[in-house]
Amino acid sequence: MKKINPSLAKGTRDFGPEVMKKRNYVFNIFRKTFSLFGFNSIETPSLENIEILNGKYGDEGDKLIFRILNSGEFLKKVDNINDLSSSELKNYISTKGLRYDLTVPLARFVSSNRENITLPFKRYQIQKVWRADRPQKGRFREFYQCDVDYIGSRSLVCEAEIIKLVYTIFKKLNIDSIKIKLNNRKILTALSEVFNFSEKFNQFCVLVDKIDKIGKDQFQNELKKLDISKEKNEKIVKILFFKGSNEEKVEFLKLNLSNSDIGIEGLNEIEQLLTLSDNFEFDLSLARGLSYYTSTIFEVISTKEDIGSLCGGGRYDDLTEVFGYKDISGIGISFGIERIIEVMIDRKLFPEKIISTNKVLVSYLSEKYIKKSIDIASIIRKENISVDLYSDNGKLKKQLQYANNNNISNVIIVGEDEIKSNLYTLKNMEKGTQEKLSIEEIISKLS
Amino acid sequence: MKKINPSLAKGTRDFGPEVMKKRNYVFNIFRKTFSLFGFNSIETPSLENIEILNGKYGDEGDKLIFRILNSGEFLKKVDNINDLSSSELKNYISTKGLRYDLTVPLARFVSSNRENITLPFKRYQIQKVWRADRPQKGRFREFYQCDVDYIGSRSLVCEAEIIKLVYTIFKKLNIDSIKIKLNNRKILTALSEVFNFSEKFNQFCVLVDKIDKIGKDQFQNELKKLDISKEKNEKIVKILFFKGSNEEKVEFLKLNLSNSDIGIEGLNEIEQLLTLSDNFEFDLSLARGLSYYTSTIFEVISTKEDIGSLCGGGRYDDLTEVFGYKDISGIGISFGIERIIEVMIDRKLFPEKIISTNKVLVSYLSEKYIKKSIDIASIIRKENISVDLYSDNGKLKKQLQYANNNNISNVIIVGEDEIKSNLYTLKNMEKGTQEKLSIEEIISKLS
Repeated sequence: MKKINPSLAKGTRDFGPEVMKKRNYVFNIFRKTFSLFGFNSIETPSLENIEILNGKYGDEGDKLIFRILNSGEFLKKVDNINDLSSSELKNYISTKGLRYDLTVPLARFVSSNRENITLPFKRYQIQKVWRADRPQKGRFREFYQCDVDYIGSRSLVCEAEIIKLVYTIFKKLNIDSIKIKLNNRKILTALSEVFNFSEKFNQFCVLVDKIDKIGKDQFQNELKKLDISKEKNEKIVKILFFKGSNEEKVEFLKLNLSNSDIGIEGLNEIEQLLTLSDNFEFDLSLARGLSYYTSTIFEVISTKEDIGSLCGGGRYDDLTEVFGYKDISGIGISFGIERIIEVMIDRKLFPEKIISTNKVLVSYLSEKYIKKSIDIASIIRKENISVDLYSDNGKLKKQLQYANNNNISNVIIVGEDEIKSNLYTLKNMEKGTQEKLSIEEIISKLS
Repeated sequence: MKKINPSLAKGTRDFGPEVMKKRNYVFNIFRKTFSLFGFNSIETPSLENIEILNGKYGDEGDKLIFRILNSGEFLKKVDNINDLSSSELKNYISTKGLRYDLTVPLARFVSSNRENITLPFKRYQIQKVWRADRPQKGRFREFYQCDVDYIGSRSLVCEAEIIKLVYTIFKKLNIDSIKIKLNNRKILTALSEVFNFSEKFNQFCVLVDKIDKIGKDQFQNELKKLDISKEKNEKIVKILFFKGSNEEKVEFLKLNLSNSDIGIEGLNEIEQLLTLSDNFEFDLSLARGLSYYTSTIFEVISTKEDIGSLCGGGRYDDLTEVFGYKDISGIGISFGIERIIEVMIDRKLFPEKIISTNKVLVSYLSEKYIKKSIDIASIIRKENISVDLYSDNGKLKKQLQYANNNNISNVIIVGEDEIKSNLYTLKNMEKGTQEKLSIEEIISKLS
């Protein structure tokens, strides 16, 4: 038999039992908190028709979509194969792709289910996405995204609730030292209008998004490259780097953007939001990379580690339009669940108890006692106590080793004496103590 | 803007909030019961290198594997493209596939993690699989599988525990009228030896697997086509259709297979298993299609509906050998979770309470009261009660309609009177009643 190397596909991971306990702990906190805030869970398929995905993530994004080869005789409809480049042939032989994020599938879902949905529609979704990226530390080709969105409401209640949700989740995860930075794309749009570079708005946003990394000087250099005059350049930097309280920033901007309708609109939104929630930092230098945001944008960062953003999101007005569903405003946030898990591992935030979930192992001194051991396991499981029954032929020492390796903290030993007296040895693996108890006593001890 | 039709890829499904509540209810019962029996959760990637998957599911299976197109200039290494058929070209331009089941990835996982695993290794896995099948009613291209397996033990404790696990799960799901049919491949092997058609063993198993569908006469016709003589044919049918208790069947077979070592071995296993568990029907006509089973095989059927099997599995001795990890026996069962959900929908087995999970909607008579409404929502959520806060501008009637459409059974109304008196209207949407209560009273009512 030809031996096959049991290796993983590049950029993918296995999650063994120990890691899964940690991941499930985090995922459960997310699910419960989303539900606490009235969000419902939905799932969409991993596979989408390629026209749903293409063109939504920019040219670079399109290249990173994993394409599914058509089944069967996929070459049948290709005549001129020699004339085609890889990227041309792709469209003949592949009509499906793996989803790249959860937002575009949500827009597709809402558009195709519009008859059955009551607006505002609140959903959360924790599912895998795939990207044909070059794998590196912390960057994978297959990973989970975790999104909540409101669809079909322009109310600032959504913004205020999302801010509350963020703090609630991080509190439940026991992650402190986080901060929400918030801005409004309308203000950035206003800047581009007031200083006359509207046609370079997207490039401007990309630059603003990098301010933290490149610093003020480099930022100004880059602005120059966009043909923004020195004078404007100075004014823009003065605005973006203005220091003060949220309210002071609003006042300062009102003076500078008084001629821009969209600027005033954005500032009004910020002001209104401040009456509902003050738990954010109005950060003029926040831009967010994605081009579909149209109003509020936000990002959550750790003030302890320099690890980029832990979540980010914003309001978008036109996401479903491409699917024929117009005038539907939405707002959402994506929690960087994989990065959050990393932070929790680094900060050692997982409670000890989640590791030892199997409360007890039933072990036996001889195969003769297996039937009795099965019965004991059944009785204890009826009380909702997790029982692992040793399932191999092995000496007690091996069975205790098994308990240790599996973080099982209690072992019941079934032998001749035990069966005769109806008192079973209960061994505590952490303390090393043991005592003889009836099944009822064991149950009340483990409950 | 070109409008894109928001349609699903063929054979895939969206799961909206109502369906997800039902699915999560079922999935949670599985997870909890697996954990109750000491199984741990693992996850493997959706993408596997193609050599891991190829050749494991027969020629037909290979064709049903969804292949991932290589990224970038995938044609670069193809010189002779005009000479290649679709199935030849496939191997040049695609080196990964979507997993077809959970068993082969498990074998890959165990083989590559053998250093970190304590045997016996007990895992469960509930994840998606993909098959490029022709979609039809109840058959999809993307669906969940739900597997538990023991790896690295030959003990019949595994069989006995799996039988108990099956009954426990179906009881918790409230699905009655199910039966476990069990057989041993060694007995079928013995039949092929005793009647001299060992070389046709796999074809024989496929035929036996169809007995229920094709009936005795058609079965005999098909045996004839395998060149099995009329005399042997009669004897085989007499054995396979023998009626009696489990013990009577064992006795009867002992007489007929006394010359076959492997037959005696299989019968001994059945006899030993009967001392540990009698909650199964020893069914000589059970064969299971998959060729990797080597000993115990079982299937769970409904005795109420004619819907095929609800779960199936068996013992396999050589699954990890192809990955270089020898002499590792395993046994597993796969729960047909999608079919089980269908049965539960047909039999109306979902508790009413799982639909209305959002316990209360906070609504407001004017936007002026939004801040107060946010505060009320926060206070109630602190008590772990799910609160949906209405998040749009809408009249009370629209807000109540929203509660109805989302199966929210209680609505708190916040208006001027309420704020002044600190007593809030709590409306029960099912009964249509309403009363004025303090926040503390509302909390104790909803808890």
